[in-house]
Amino acid sequence: MQKLPGKTVERLSEYRRTLINCLSEGKSFIYSHELAHMHHKTAVQVRRDIMLMGFSGLQRKGYDVKEMIDAISEILDSPEGQNVAIIGIGHLGTAILHYFKGKRAKLNIQALFDTDPQKIDRIIDGIPCYHPEKLDDIVHKYRINIGILTVPPEKAKELKDQLIQAGIRGILNFTTVPLKVPDHVYLEEYDMITSIEKVAYFSGK
Amino acid sequence: MQKLPGKTVERLSEYRRTLINCLSEGKSFIYSHELAHMHHKTAVQVRRDIMLMGFSGLQRKGYDVKEMIDAISEILDSPEGQNVAIIGIGHLGTAILHYFKGKRAKLNIQALFDTDPQKIDRIIDGIPCYHPEKLDDIVHKYRINIGILTVPPEKAKELKDQLIQAGIRGILNFTTVPLKVPDHVYLEEYDMITSIEKVAYFSGK
Repeated sequence: MQKLPGKTVERLSEYRRTLINCLSEGKSFIYSHELAHMHHKTAVQVRRDIMLMGFSGLQRKGYDVKEMIDAISEILDSPEGQNVAIIGIGHLGTAILHYFKGKRAKLNIQALFDTDPQKIDRIIDGIPCYHPEKLDDIVHKYRINIGILTVPPEKAKELKDQLIQAGIRGILNFTTVPLKVPDHVYLEEYDMITSIEKVAYFSGK
Repeated sequence: MQKLPGKTVERLSEYRRTLINCLSEGKSFIYSHELAHMHHKTAVQVRRDIMLMGFSGLQRKGYDVKEMIDAISEILDSPEGQNVAIIGIGHLGTAILHYFKGKRAKLNIQALFDTDPQKIDRIIDGIPCYHPEKLDDIVHKYRINIGILTVPPEKAKELKDQLIQAGIRGILNFTTVPLKVPDHVYLEEYDMITSIEKVAYFSGK
């Protein structure tokens, strides 16, 4: 199947998160307009996304929530799962670890990396933490293909290079330094200061 | 001045961050194509943004970095500054506090809120932390108009309502729960799981 556009993937991820919540609250059917409302989208947009993923589970009571979760998972998750490393276990890295752990069966956080001697060779929330000098070894050993970068800005470029050297395929960059990657690596960047400045701009007089 | 589009504001924020780095590294002039390269944008895009902000400081050596920072700041920062509260001082809230503190003179983190007795009525990294029951008082007292939400998902809606009740104008929602706000409040939402799932999708086979 051809890759969907990035924005569509984002929406499917958001829908799935909401649908999982619905299911856990005992809601088994949902109308497109309900899902749209929860996400500040139009029902037309939601129906277009549902069509795009080739899902047709519409019944009189709405869409079957469980079936729609499975349909989204079939698109977003690779069948064999993917292994993830978090590089930098400060507050942000730890927050990501807590947010993420056990939430997505097909994405396994396999290793953490940090230079803090208090953390190296310890198990943190069930995941082993290593010195970055072992990055190449561990990435190969556990077939990790995604790296989440939450290191201090002055370390970002060096560790990005190490990750690519080790054969990683995707990087999520949470540092404040914009990075460059070769074409075969997918890069997603997020800088929280930009989000805060945007809110400030639109909240000001 | 009319409000600029959200995407333009994001880019100006990103340019400023890079320009501040340039200046600290002793680089006083920059060409549009250099700035473009650092941000994975085209030079045309950068020049259009520079035009849009009404900046014309182009010299033979490029744009004056200091002048461009000032021009961006005049657009993004409100002259009297804005006051910010972080609600939820777990790992993510702490990471934001560290990232942000002292980085933007016109955005002052004035208060933190948490229900942890270990944190209430303590000063954390120079900022006082209060119980959320004092939210209304503190928001008024310190004229806080931006709230950053980093609470557990089950608390998100309740605290969003309290923030709006207290008169806040902008919310940055880092919880995994999509929120609704009235028209006069600006809402920006970020869910890191969506970013990670997007990287996974484009890194998979």
